[in-house]
Amino acid sequence: MELVSIVTEKLLGIGVYVSCDQLSVPIKDMLLSLCINVVMSVVGFSAVIRTIPLVSSMFIDAGLFGRDLCKKERDKKVPESMGMVSGSVYLITMFLFLGVPFGHHFINRSSPFPHAVFAEYLTSLLSICCMLFLGFADDVLNLKWRYKLVLPTLASLPLLMVYYINMGSTTVVVPKPLRAWIGLTLNIGPLYYIYMSMLAVFCTNAINIYAGINGLESGQAIVISASVAAFNLVELGGYQSKFHYFSLCLIIPFLATSLGLYFYNRSTQQFIFNFLYSTPFKLFHLFCTGCPRLHRLPRYNPDSDKLEPSIAEFKTNAVRKPVLSVLRILSRFGVVHLKEGLGEDGDMCTINNLTLINLALLKLGPQHEGMLTTILLLLQVLSSCLAFFIRYPLADLFF
Amino acid sequence: MELVSIVTEKLLGIGVYVSCDQLSVPIKDMLLSLCINVVMSVVGFSAVIRTIPLVSSMFIDAGLFGRDLCKKERDKKVPESMGMVSGSVYLITMFLFLGVPFGHHFINRSSPFPHAVFAEYLTSLLSICCMLFLGFADDVLNLKWRYKLVLPTLASLPLLMVYYINMGSTTVVVPKPLRAWIGLTLNIGPLYYIYMSMLAVFCTNAINIYAGINGLESGQAIVISASVAAFNLVELGGYQSKFHYFSLCLIIPFLATSLGLYFYNRSTQQFIFNFLYSTPFKLFHLFCTGCPRLHRLPRYNPDSDKLEPSIAEFKTNAVRKPVLSVLRILSRFGVVHLKEGLGEDGDMCTINNLTLINLALLKLGPQHEGMLTTILLLLQVLSSCLAFFIRYPLADLFF
Repeated sequence: MELVSIVTEKLLGIGVYVSCDQLSVPIKDMLLSLCINVVMSVVGFSAVIRTIPLVSSMFIDAGLFGRDLCKKERDKKVPESMGMVSGSVYLITMFLFLGVPFGHHFINRSSPFPHAVFAEYLTSLLSICCMLFLGFADDVLNLKWRYKLVLPTLASLPLLMVYYINMGSTTVVVPKPLRAWIGLTLNIGPLYYIYMSMLAVFCTNAINIYAGINGLESGQAIVISASVAAFNLVELGGYQSKFHYFSLCLIIPFLATSLGLYFYNRSTQQFIFNFLYSTPFKLFHLFCTGCPRLHRLPRYNPDSDKLEPSIAEFKTNAVRKPVLSVLRILSRFGVVHLKEGLGEDGDMCTINNLTLINLALLKLGPQHEGMLTTILLLLQVLSSCLAFFIRYPLADLFF
Repeated sequence: MELVSIVTEKLLGIGVYVSCDQLSVPIKDMLLSLCINVVMSVVGFSAVIRTIPLVSSMFIDAGLFGRDLCKKERDKKVPESMGMVSGSVYLITMFLFLGVPFGHHFINRSSPFPHAVFAEYLTSLLSICCMLFLGFADDVLNLKWRYKLVLPTLASLPLLMVYYINMGSTTVVVPKPLRAWIGLTLNIGPLYYIYMSMLAVFCTNAINIYAGINGLESGQAIVISASVAAFNLVELGGYQSKFHYFSLCLIIPFLATSLGLYFYNRSTQQFIFNFLYSTPFKLFHLFCTGCPRLHRLPRYNPDSDKLEPSIAEFKTNAVRKPVLSVLRILSRFGVVHLKEGLGEDGDMCTINNLTLINLALLKLGPQHEGMLTTILLLLQVLSSCLAFFIRYPLADLFF
């Protein structure tokens, strides 16, 4: 499922990188391309739905499966890494679509071909292909974290280079309150490239925060990509329509193939089997030992058929002092659930595992898995609404 | 190991596709870029040598290993798919190198940037990345043959499109004897694209004919890529220098990373463990049943420590008549070794398995594995010499 997240966030990243000034597509060509894109996306959607059942035995044979821990038939093997199927179908759809936005140049070869725009398409597909490969390699090989930080950075190089070549702006607009000191705009130069590169790495890994329950990650990908598509549609008539058109061409097939994956996940009613970690948990190395992977998922209670927050237990003095202080402050604000002075000697403490899923269970109480997925996806929708609120009414106040 | 072959042949394919007219690099910039390329390739070589031992346990944990069937310690696990490491290092090297050939455009931004050439670089990396992904997926999932035929065709689409966009020629030069009828050149139009697409699929799969003995496939990749590099170097001063320069930039890092893989293979003295099939065997479906995978490799004789040709046994009437006739003719020419009228009822026959490796063993007698690899690689060198002979003295006669 991590694949989905990687590709989603890569796509979202692309929105930032688009910079070319060469595209001057007539509106009717643009709409025709988008119609073809939608038709191809629908084909891609059904290809995902049909392909997953066909290939799932191959994945199981290759050891890419999980046990359905939350059901009575514990031995049932559930194929993992199905995001690879939707990712591959997405790439194939994009390869087949690649010529469509440039169709009028093929028919009327007298006009100069927009090589710079074409390079942007190619480089975005190259980055997506790299991340798909990396995601699959991670599913198979359980890559170490250093690879997951270094490889996306390297894979973002071609994107950054195309941005540089196409004279992408490195100027940011300064918020109104600061303009008296800094001016209307600020050219942050190389810092902009560092920011974009870090964004690629951050996005690639951060979406894992929702890993753990099936259907949730692909659902999240759908909510985010649908939000991006909505944003692009709203802005399609604006003065930067070409960038939004480019983004739409990439995001619609992604939305469709992710939908295929999501429907497959939901229809097979797969419960928790995905043992991916949550990012902060791993990054901060809070608990180096004594915390098997399973604990990072919510706990399934067979009696109530509900999920409960899972809890980690550790010796108080095994945690560095500053970390403990931070945990105490967070606990006071209700973000984590820290209990100290436990055990016979009072030197043990417990904490809910630091994933968003556990936090939600802590706030809402035990939930059925399907309900939990719905709630968390609603939260994602609200986040998108917040983003739109920041982008539209709020941005007008500050910019 | 299949990965190596896929990438090699993809690279060789690229030689055909290069078509752009935009590159006008000063000689000293060209040489500087090539020097940087060589230095980066050396770094890539040592990266492969260092990375393989570091990651091999990850591959073994993921089930990507083979048993060393030809040694006494049969239980020793030998990591497979190490071509993925060299392939990934190759891609990373190319990503880091990507800006170098365009360095003078970054310094002197007044000259127009050669977007078309840059798109060629991007699309070649995109195809290589796709094939690397496909090769890894095949190693993990044992893809069916239809995927291995369809997916490379789709992955070659961006290459073909760039060729089309850059107004690549579809004209072939007619050999002298035919010129009286056809003329000096012939524009074969769309057929040229079909030819290139089929070449990509053919090359991707055909190199497997050498699969089966470790070090042989990577050795073959080295011989072929060294031949291409030699050809490019010879032609670097010619009138199509820019194409050969482009090819060199891609092939030198590939040669270096393949060398890294080859040295690793040889130094660990891994014997046969790679159960990949030979292409013709699979394609012609001669023997549908009764032929376990192992038989397609040469047979290891522990007494003599040598490899012997492996033999398939089947009922004579299980083979279609026309196929049998072809086999009989081939047997008369000594290309296959067919024995008929065996078994109690005389209705069985045996044939050596139709791989080049078995054919070599049939002609040369049983061989030590290291010796066999050397002989087969020499054969590959001779093939390259033959190609040069066809290209240089012979082509002058016909063109």
